[in-house]
Amino acid sequence: MGIVAGNVAGERPLDEAKNVTERELFRVSTQLFKEKGYRGTSMRDISAALVIKTSSIYHYINSKEELLKKIALKGMNMLLDAGKRISAEQISPAEKLQKLVESHTKLICENLDLFTVTLRELTPSNAASFWEEIVDHRDQYEKIVRGIISEGKKLGAFREIDERMAGFALLGMINWIIRWYNPGGSKSPAEIAALWFEIFIGGIKRAPADK
Amino acid sequence: MGIVAGNVAGERPLDEAKNVTERELFRVSTQLFKEKGYRGTSMRDISAALVIKTSSIYHYINSKEELLKKIALKGMNMLLDAGKRISAEQISPAEKLQKLVESHTKLICENLDLFTVTLRELTPSNAASFWEEIVDHRDQYEKIVRGIISEGKKLGAFREIDERMAGFALLGMINWIIRWYNPGGSKSPAEIAALWFEIFIGGIKRAPADK
Repeated sequence: MGIVAGNVAGERPLDEAKNVTERELFRVSTQLFKEKGYRGTSMRDISAALVIKTSSIYHYINSKEELLKKIALKGMNMLLDAGKRISAEQISPAEKLQKLVESHTKLICENLDLFTVTLRELTPSNAASFWEEIVDHRDQYEKIVRGIISEGKKLGAFREIDERMAGFALLGMINWIIRWYNPGGSKSPAEIAALWFEIFIGGIKRAPADK
Repeated sequence: MGIVAGNVAGERPLDEAKNVTERELFRVSTQLFKEKGYRGTSMRDISAALVIKTSSIYHYINSKEELLKKIALKGMNMLLDAGKRISAEQISPAEKLQKLVESHTKLICENLDLFTVTLRELTPSNAASFWEEIVDHRDQYEKIVRGIISEGKKLGAFREIDERMAGFALLGMINWIIRWYNPGGSKSPAEIAALWFEIFIGGIKRAPADK
């Protein structure tokens, strides 16, 4: 209560209206980029879905590419924020991995449109003007994953495995979820995350015989 | 020697010329779909890269969508042919999985343009007119993967794991390779496949204590 300024009657009605339209613009364009592809969606498609004039969209953003950038950075920052928080916790590397797999899986499943666009439509050619920023965010997240695996190796919990490669294997398992996940399906995000962690940790932990 | 008809001087020169152009059309469009995206590539881009008239392309194919279909089905049939062959071999389920991971990884790494298009540009909206055929091929391959895991469970080699979910985890690890693989990088396809198999089999095999 009271967190959203517009909740107080009469306060900042214009900003509130602007925020609602911006949120709707973001939601609708994410959905259209997922359904028709980024290249297959025109500003006209977006304005038609919002029932506003195409020219009105330019009050909120400068270009379709800016929309893709906002969507992608939102998705990547959600992952990064959770990753940074988890890797700083005072828990074992295996527990960190478990939490990271859970957080990443839930974020994808609960924001399926957003992450389908972020993981499928975000190609070097679609995101040419801000590709460096994307690579920087991706590198930061990959570094967090590798850091946890590396920590587990040092502590003797994980076997001697290339953390860069193991990180790619784990991120592939999780990111591929956008290709088959059905929100109405029989598996919950928590169940998927638990199974993914079980498979991955079983594959990288030091076997009792190795100790 | 003698396998390619055109090797024999004067034999089928017209067909040979047509075959060369068709192969080039296929190669160039695959590369452009990867670099600029399927939607971002026009027939004009393709004809310019081939240094032929745009109208000439229509001697070989009817539409850009037909090109995407040919590329996608080629990739999927390469996977399927190998998958069918491997699953019919008289070897253990673990050996079948190892061979399948190796075959799938090598096919992706050695045909990176083809599989980047097949795995990234092949969306329900880009492939609307032949989506059912794509789903049918995908389902056949997933069934092979699940069948091997199921066989391993029955024989007691793998633990009680949901073969559908485990299959998604494995295919995610492998298919995600298109996102980071660098043909000039330090890891060979065989090394990647060996590591992927090691991680996955470590995660699904029955632990000695379970026996």
